[in-house]
Amino acid sequence: MSIYEKLKDRSIQLPPPAPPKGHYQTAVVLEGRYLYTAGTGCAKDGKPLAAGWLGREVSVEAGKAAARQCAINLLANIESSIGSLDRIARVIRTTVFVACAPDFKEQSVVGEGLSELFCDLFGPDGMGTRSAIGVNALPGGQAVEIESIFELKPEAGEGAAIC
Amino acid sequence: MSIYEKLKDRSIQLPPPAPPKGHYQTAVVLEGRYLYTAGTGCAKDGKPLAAGWLGREVSVEAGKAAARQCAINLLANIESSIGSLDRIARVIRTTVFVACAPDFKEQSVVGEGLSELFCDLFGPDGMGTRSAIGVNALPGGQAVEIESIFELKPEAGEGAAIC
Amino acid sequence: MSIYEKLKDRSIQLPPPAPPKGHYQTAVVLEGRYLYTAGTGCAKDGKPLAAGWLGREVSVEAGKAAARQCAINLLANIESSIGSLDRIARVIRTTVFVACAPDFKEQSVVGEGLSELFCDLFGPDGMGTRSAIGVNALPGGQAVEIESIFELKPEAGEGAAIC
Repeated sequence: MSIYEKLKDRSIQLPPPAPPKGHYQTAVVLEGRYLYTAGTGCAKDGKPLAAGWLGREVSVEAGKAAARQCAINLLANIESSIGSLDRIARVIRTTVFVACAPDFKEQSVVGEGLSELFCDLFGPDGMGTRSAIGVNALPGGQAVEIESIFELKPEAGEGAAIC
Repeated sequence: MSIYEKLKDRSIQLPPPAPPKGHYQTAVVLEGRYLYTAGTGCAKDGKPLAAGWLGREVSVEAGKAAARQCAINLLANIESSIGSLDRIARVIRTTVFVACAPDFKEQSVVGEGLSELFCDLFGPDGMGTRSAIGVNALPGGQAVEIESIFELKPEAGEGAAIC
Repeated sequence: MSIYEKLKDRSIQLPPPAPPKGHYQTAVVLEGRYLYTAGTGCAKDGKPLAAGWLGREVSVEAGKAAARQCAINLLANIESSIGSLDRIARVIRTTVFVACAPDFKEQSVVGEGLSELFCDLFGPDGMGTRSAIGVNALPGGQAVEIESIFELKPEAGEGAAIC
């Protein structure tokens, strides 16, 4: 199944890409091959899917769902940037920032919301490295923000010319 | 206008490069092409331009000015590392860490202090990706710290030899 | 002295590699040349070497020891991923996340626990860039977590085929 067939099969609709909130881009591509994303939040329908602190008003399950939403928003931004998710070869790395109480210890579990989705969609290629970090506040009061680096497949026509 | 003409035109003087505070480098270059910076603070004339928390004793405007100062300090370190800012081709990505109160939500606005300067100096090439993250404490009590990856132009003479 | 001779000389035993705590990898290699690590904590013998906040229950010395332990755990994971630490060419960059009280200012000193070890083991090639960031909570309540990018030497046989 292609990534788009999988998204359809899981009833995942990509939202409209979110415009950057300032003088930056949501994705930058190096050498046609490596895609860096901006920090991407968990907005859904115009507001954070989860707001506040894990370990206080946000449950671990809600945090996982927010991390999953970050991943969906990230894919929407990537599609907008490079035209098609079919070009994703694999996930290289992801940092998951989790707004949380000082005594919260389950940042890695929250990160699974993203990683489980990436593995479901990309298989073993969805298994990049991951850091899960607890912080005291994220933009707009949202509970989770992520950033990733992806490896892309060569564009059609690229590669044939090598040697 | 060259980057140096723009700096002069904006009355921006690069400070002396700050020596690293330990066993690390302020910049590392890969393949002569990608420059990684160390985390860089908002010191000016030997002390933080802004110290403490956004959302408490540091205003959003002071935070933006601190992020701008981080960017200026970053450029000073880059010049010291590679000899000239003329070699910068573009900004790839930046993370902006903002020391802030738990209820502070404007980390992205603070990050604009850096991004606006990069766009002013480098035009569209100053628009990398950006993550803005709130944290509870930064080295020396400073309010803002940034790190970036830049793409460099080939050094004079490089490139001609390829195939 | 090889890296393994140095480890033996310093009486540093690499622990068994820690399995990832979820759907991710502890190391990913790009182009056979760049190794990204996952966020790596300070566990020793199954529990954090230091837990809690720097600036409260964790002293700066204990934090430095925890950062050093993170580096040792990172090397164990790298060996497990690529087979041998002999392939490490140099450290490119490291982020050191330090769980700390809001008034803690010595994140860079904590980071030295890692950087001093890398420089001891790899000499000048152990001097990558470094960011030291204070945060309010890390997975499992541990005091320090790090992530790094390394450059690798070509594998035996690689490189000869170029052109």
